Amino acid sequence: MMRSLWELGEDRLLAQILPQLQQNARVVTGAGDDCAVVQFRGAKQWLLLKSDCVVEGIHFVARGNARAVGWKAMMRGLSDFAAMSGVPQFALITLVIAGKKQVMWVRDLYRGLDQAARYFDIAIVGGETSDTDGPTVVVVSVVGSVEPDRCILRSGGKANDDLFVTGKLGGSIRRRHLNFVARIEEARWLTANFKVHAMMDLSDGLGADLPRLARASRLAFSIDERALPVSRGCTVQQAISDGEDYELLFAVSRRDRARLERMWRRKFPKLGLRRIGYLHQRSKIKHQTFLRGYVHFRERR
Amino acid sequence: MMRSLWELGEDRLLAQILPQLQQNARVVTGAGDDCAVVQFRGAKQWLLLKSDCVVEGIHFVARGNARAVGWKAMMRGLSDFAAMSGVPQFALITLVIAGKKQVMWVRDLYRGLDQAARYFDIAIVGGETSDTDGPTVVVVSVVGSVEPDRCILRSGGKANDDLFVTGKLGGSIRRRHLNFVARIEEARWLTANFKVHAMMDLSDGLGADLPRLARASRLAFSIDERALPVSRGCTVQQAISDGEDYELLFAVSRRDRARLERMWRRKFPKLGLRRIGYLHQRSKIKHQTFLRGYVHFRERR
Repeated sequence: MMRSLWELGEDRLLAQILPQLQQNARVVTGAGDDCAVVQFRGAKQWLLLKSDCVVEGIHFVARGNARAVGWKAMMRGLSDFAAMSGVPQFALITLVIAGKKQVMWVRDLYRGLDQAARYFDIAIVGGETSDTDGPTVVVVSVVGSVEPDRCILRSGGKANDDLFVTGKLGGSIRRRHLNFVARIEEARWLTANFKVHAMMDLSDGLGADLPRLARASRLAFSIDERALPVSRGCTVQQAISDGEDYELLFAVSRRDRARLERMWRRKFPKLGLRRIGYLHQRSKIKHQTFLRGYVHFRERR
Repeated sequence: MMRSLWELGEDRLLAQILPQLQQNARVVTGAGDDCAVVQFRGAKQWLLLKSDCVVEGIHFVARGNARAVGWKAMMRGLSDFAAMSGVPQFALITLVIAGKKQVMWVRDLYRGLDQAARYFDIAIVGGETSDTDGPTVVVVSVVGSVEPDRCILRSGGKANDDLFVTGKLGGSIRRRHLNFVARIEEARWLTANFKVHAMMDLSDGLGADLPRLARASRLAFSIDERALPVSRGCTVQQAISDGEDYELLFAVSRRDRARLERMWRRKFPKLGLRRIGYLHQRSKIKHQTFLRGYVHFRERR
């Protein structure tokens, strides 16, 4: 049976492969959450690891602004750090690019990578380059830390937790996907002040990502569509399925609701925080199926 | 002035860009050595970081053995760990691959990645996948540790140090480049028993790599061509410039020579160790220019 990746789908294939791979006693959480979490000998803090890539023709256009491509390539990985309330510290760059490409493009790319790194005091400690006959690929690997009691997985959601999202959803492709700032400051503030049960960043769209958080927490969810923070000019459907929002989705006890909403407004007056629904036991209400987000290989069928 | 990467050359471009990038106080050695070396809060050991990639059409052929591609993709990064006497512990995989490709190919690729990881008890803790319209790209990021007093840089070579290489050089493309084992065990043994001053792995060929070690140590080198451990069926020129040997090149005091050669034969009876020359002050003899190795972008002009 010779199936293509399109037919099987990326998520299903990796879900089959990744659990079979070699692990060791130092792994807290391997593939499957926003970052990997591991223990490093002698350190009290956990080590967070994440690799992510942008590909010409998929995530950016060849004639596009190279500085913006670099910014995005770095910020995508940092958004995964935000999702776990992690502190990024080091980054490695791998650039696969044809020798005929312009030196100026590479300089601008690195300018964007470096600007994004400086924003969070991250050191870029490696830069590998390889030739290719095909599209440019930029891979960013980020290494950082998190206090064990502030590391937020997707799997910690509890029944009756409120679900919150930051910012607005939908329409990111028009501009925001190239100049967003990872929600690291917000995530760190949240875990310094509240007991966040589960968190992730919205990269594939609420419709794809929320079911992942609920599934990891072995719960179902209920969403009030009218409560979704829809970007200006977008429909609810776009807010659910556009993707690349890079906002935070998180679950906290409803006992914290009032204090969270009040303190958030004071701390981040320019950034919205919206309660969009709640988690509940699977049996209670049938799993909502109207949510359908961006799924990599399937999208292009 | 619109120069292409071919015209400028990968090494020169990165040599210009990388020193300008954001660093921070926790960086021991950033880009420029085989791995990056950084400090992680509370840990006595240093953290080693390395990303590396293999690209279809450049490092492997589309119809090739996917398991061997995976093995090679992992072992290349591990060879950089050997170069610093590091202990690899965790790996992240980023796979950029067209949706039309076969699921079986990806499974075999991961089988090879996992076999190489298991060889050194490394946990694969992340697997990102992206679509592409172009050739397959496999990026492996490896994270591990090294004791500060056993971390060997390229820059520590001293005048009159002997230069040694392990194994044989040249002709790797015929087979060895797909099934080699990174010299981690050998490197760990060396630093447990000897004061190694400088070390690196031979990936671009002795002719490209030895000048890098000498330059980093601010020294010149002298090589006895007749002493080179040339692979069967290869010329001296091939041993110098073929590349992908993944052997160790290192500098130790000549006072350790006899003990090293004697102990090595006993410990690794099947693996050769050859003294090929020595380091010396730059003024003494003119820098040898006959050595010319594999240089990525230039090779294809």
